[in-house]
Amino acid sequence: MKSAGIDELVARPSAWLGDGKRSGIVVSCRVRVARNVHGESFPCWMQEPDRIRLWKKLSASLAELPSMVDPLVFEMGELQWCDKQVLKERHLISVEECEKGAGSGVVLRGDESMSVMVNEEDHLRIQAMSPGSNLERLWKLVDRADTELERVVRYAFSEKLGYLTACPSNVGTGLRASVMLHLPGLGLLNETEPVTKGLVRIGFAVRGLLGEGSDASGNMFQISNQRTLGECEADIINRLSEAVAEIVGHEKNARARLIEQRREYVGDFVGRSVGILTNAHLLSSRELLDLLSGLRLGRDLGMIRNIATSTMYELILLTQPGHMLKITAKDLTPEKRDEMRAQLVRSRLAGMTAQV
Amino acid sequence: MKSAGIDELVARPSAWLGDGKRSGIVVSCRVRVARNVHGESFPCWMQEPDRIRLWKKLSASLAELPSMVDPLVFEMGELQWCDKQVLKERHLISVEECEKGAGSGVVLRGDESMSVMVNEEDHLRIQAMSPGSNLERLWKLVDRADTELERVVRYAFSEKLGYLTACPSNVGTGLRASVMLHLPGLGLLNETEPVTKGLVRIGFAVRGLLGEGSDASGNMFQISNQRTLGECEADIINRLSEAVAEIVGHEKNARARLIEQRREYVGDFVGRSVGILTNAHLLSSRELLDLLSGLRLGRDLGMIRNIATSTMYELILLTQPGHMLKITAKDLTPEKRDEMRAQLVRSRLAGMTAQV
Repeated sequence: MKSAGIDELVARPSAWLGDGKRSGIVVSCRVRVARNVHGESFPCWMQEPDRIRLWKKLSASLAELPSMVDPLVFEMGELQWCDKQVLKERHLISVEECEKGAGSGVVLRGDESMSVMVNEEDHLRIQAMSPGSNLERLWKLVDRADTELERVVRYAFSEKLGYLTACPSNVGTGLRASVMLHLPGLGLLNETEPVTKGLVRIGFAVRGLLGEGSDASGNMFQISNQRTLGECEADIINRLSEAVAEIVGHEKNARARLIEQRREYVGDFVGRSVGILTNAHLLSSRELLDLLSGLRLGRDLGMIRNIATSTMYELILLTQPGHMLKITAKDLTPEKRDEMRAQLVRSRLAGMTAQV
Repeated sequence: MKSAGIDELVARPSAWLGDGKRSGIVVSCRVRVARNVHGESFPCWMQEPDRIRLWKKLSASLAELPSMVDPLVFEMGELQWCDKQVLKERHLISVEECEKGAGSGVVLRGDESMSVMVNEEDHLRIQAMSPGSNLERLWKLVDRADTELERVVRYAFSEKLGYLTACPSNVGTGLRASVMLHLPGLGLLNETEPVTKGLVRIGFAVRGLLGEGSDASGNMFQISNQRTLGECEADIINRLSEAVAEIVGHEKNARARLIEQRREYVGDFVGRSVGILTNAHLLSSRELLDLLSGLRLGRDLGMIRNIATSTMYELILLTQPGHMLKITAKDLTPEKRDEMRAQLVRSRLAGMTAQV
């Protein structure tokens, strides 16, 4: 069992949560490429012995890459349910990877800024994450690791199509860049929908905080490119960066209008968030996200002081089921979890007030 | 204009709000009798000159009753809309009386413990109110005023039916006794309905805080006798007192079970109420009632200290539209009213905390 490594992770904040460029609105960003190994079946057509053989080979190569500083290696077959949850909640592996067993796994940089899933949908998914708006730097990180790996592994590549992937939607660059945005101003003005619809129209995918299919809890939206084919990597990154800059403009404009025209309405949102967070005794994870949205907006607008960005995001992370299970070492009922979540939040935010 | 007298009222708490016997659960009680004058048409069949003549005669007689200490006299035709609202919000006149003009009015004891409406549905409605559980004493007060008045006014009375009234539902004793109960324990356990249904089955009417047709905002319920015929006054009062004692028992039992089995659930209700009241910047009157219910329960359970019962009920009173209009002397929009209400509540409850 590899729980020791997981325990280390639980005890510290995630690399991608904290302050960064434009971090009042751009929470975090992520870049990943999908790669497959020449001459091997895609993971879901592989037999288990082949998958295990490939995992051993790739994980060993990954752990030795110069980019992979202080590597941590986890094989899914060796992890308990809650260990996988912790990795998923830290966005180091996908929901799908949690379902996998022997022969699938992940290799991370010790600081969690980069992770490579092996034998998820593709043989390799190389991803880098950071707080704030940082797409160009992340692309460089991923590109470097990709280049290092290509020296030891022959990728499945077509001169005509580019990198080959299990799902046609990833063929070509195999690149997916995404940005997590916090848009409470647009949310309070009911103006989110035109913005997200416009993004979809020009070829971006929009999702909630928890990925595909999830709604916009806590006014958080994840924007990513849809196309991987017919556009080079730099263009994909540029186009997304430009779209993000535009949305940031809309959100700033919404906040300015709110403060000028409806200060009490914003103050009510911020004040109630503080009041409930510091006094509730039962909190669902969904409600916590919504309340932390108020806290974050309050801090951005100068209504709340003395609260670090990292504290807010740590609360999101530490109060998710997997992390709570690891911290308390108890299998909690949902109501008991709501109680512990509220207790943790009260203790972290004790004495906080809002000055509207 | 008689606004001067109304301004005096606005500046002080209502007589029926405060601490009294069993006041943790029994908020207040009220007893009224309906009487009509022999030889006069009922008010709604009267011509205006007759109504004015009768108002002048009755209001003069009422103001001179020994029970009517420091009388205040208000004729509806002389009051502005907001003055009538103030009287209604203090439960000194009915919603119907607000609609009346010249020839209808009210005479009150200076301390607001008794009020007599003239030419509402009946010529006379004599009522007494007090905080807590106090029906027997109130009945004595009303009975004394009634006896004093009968010395100078001849009532419409039938040997067979008793006192005659405009609506047959009041014929006989003309007596309506009611009790306002605060039942948050039963509310939190979703056990209110069986209790109120049982009361209706044995002949009581159950209404929300704001009288006929209103729902149970703030876990407040008003229970009153339905029958006025075939039962003497003492029996009506006794039967209601017994029903109240039984409901108080159910509520105490509910609270005990909550504290023993679901302390965090109650604590969440109380804590959130404190958190929102002390931090919101917009509060509707409906939400305020619900939140004050949490505050009141928290105080009864020892989770909140240093808050007087009167403060809580003053907040209900002072934040109603008529009172707010008198206090601010401005015609406010509903949103502006919600803002002022929240501001008043924050300033009165500043620094309050709950210890669950």
